[in-house]
Amino acid sequence: MALLSGGMDSAAAAAWARAEGFELVTLAIDYGQRHRVELAAAERISRWLGAAEHVVVPVDLRPVGGSALTGDIAVPKKSGADSIPVTYVPARNTLFLAIALGLAEARAAGAIVIGVNRVDYSGYPDCRPEFLSAFERLVEVGTRAGVEGRAPRVLAPLLDLPKSEIVRLGARLDVPFGDTVSCYDPTSDGAACGRCDACRLRREGFEVAGITDPTRYALR
Amino acid sequence: MALLSGGMDSAAAAAWARAEGFELVTLAIDYGQRHRVELAAAERISRWLGAAEHVVVPVDLRPVGGSALTGDIAVPKKSGADSIPVTYVPARNTLFLAIALGLAEARAAGAIVIGVNRVDYSGYPDCRPEFLSAFERLVEVGTRAGVEGRAPRVLAPLLDLPKSEIVRLGARLDVPFGDTVSCYDPTSDGAACGRCDACRLRREGFEVAGITDPTRYALR
Repeated sequence: MALLSGGMDSAAAAAWARAEGFELVTLAIDYGQRHRVELAAAERISRWLGAAEHVVVPVDLRPVGGSALTGDIAVPKKSGADSIPVTYVPARNTLFLAIALGLAEARAAGAIVIGVNRVDYSGYPDCRPEFLSAFERLVEVGTRAGVEGRAPRVLAPLLDLPKSEIVRLGARLDVPFGDTVSCYDPTSDGAACGRCDACRLRREGFEVAGITDPTRYALR
Repeated sequence: MALLSGGMDSAAAAAWARAEGFELVTLAIDYGQRHRVELAAAERISRWLGAAEHVVVPVDLRPVGGSALTGDIAVPKKSGADSIPVTYVPARNTLFLAIALGLAEARAAGAIVIGVNRVDYSGYPDCRPEFLSAFERLVEVGTRAGVEGRAPRVLAPLLDLPKSEIVRLGARLDVPFGDTVSCYDPTSDGAACGRCDACRLRREGFEVAGITDPTRYALR
């Protein structure tokens, strides 16, 4: 099963899994994010992938707070290179993987595919291989599947790829980039802002790869 | 911060933490459980504890399915002693701890208190010390707090206590047992069924402790 955020990374990761022969169940988490267009994008990608099922799990993180992505802090246009960005949602990947794990158990899935990447998101502790290993250990000891010796693997095929390589991988697999959204702060008519960290990384990735990004940007 | 399920175990665990000097933020998860009275109970317990804040996070696990507690399987009146019960919610404690971790990070909490217990729930893989250790490891490597060397601890004060000892601990700490609910399958007027695993364990615990259970049971 594959986590879909609506972004290009998770779409490329899921497309990779399909190319590897996995039958896909896709999962999107509705966590009260500001950029609601992500959920519609995840559904489009799931249809494109031909997933057997698309599951949407609503979890409202607004009572928790603490992040620019759930509405209580302004989205910055440029974060410091070394610090953990304010767009970091506390324990987000832990939460997403926990929900994915529940679904993987309920569907007897052999693997959880997640589009995390440590090259461009070095400021996020939960985008590192140590984190994924620790989660796999948790699955082995803390689930029925693990106890019975059939713990789902956690696959992160993009972990070490720079954005330009993710673009190239997605292009090879015919990922419909125009259906994916990356912007943290889209305009009211759905255009990407072109200035937030996610837009900046995406544009640079397409540029370096020499591939045209079909995204409509408010700021050229 | 302390997870409250509305049951007596989490109430006793939170009361223990308060007695240890922790200032409490309490967290209840609204996960689409059938036994909705739990949420009202958690709120009463939080008020009794004098928590600084009571946070309720809604997460709808019904699209995931796979458990008697979220409505797609009948609650059994007696499960086998050795097997994992059908009331096992896939990855539930992983999910609850992930949400608690997000809240702990957002509030800079020093600890997460959870009422898990392995004596009476030996069939649940996520009620074992290996699971809690694996989760602590995940917190150390996968969160901002962990990276900065101030990872919240995961405290499970009831882990090795038989139910009768939990009853005695709760009684010593004046836990209002009448405000807690344990039943997996309460009647429409709010009485406990008296026959499900949770009722059976609770009644035995009070009996062995020689303390009167204020719970109203449909079946005496």
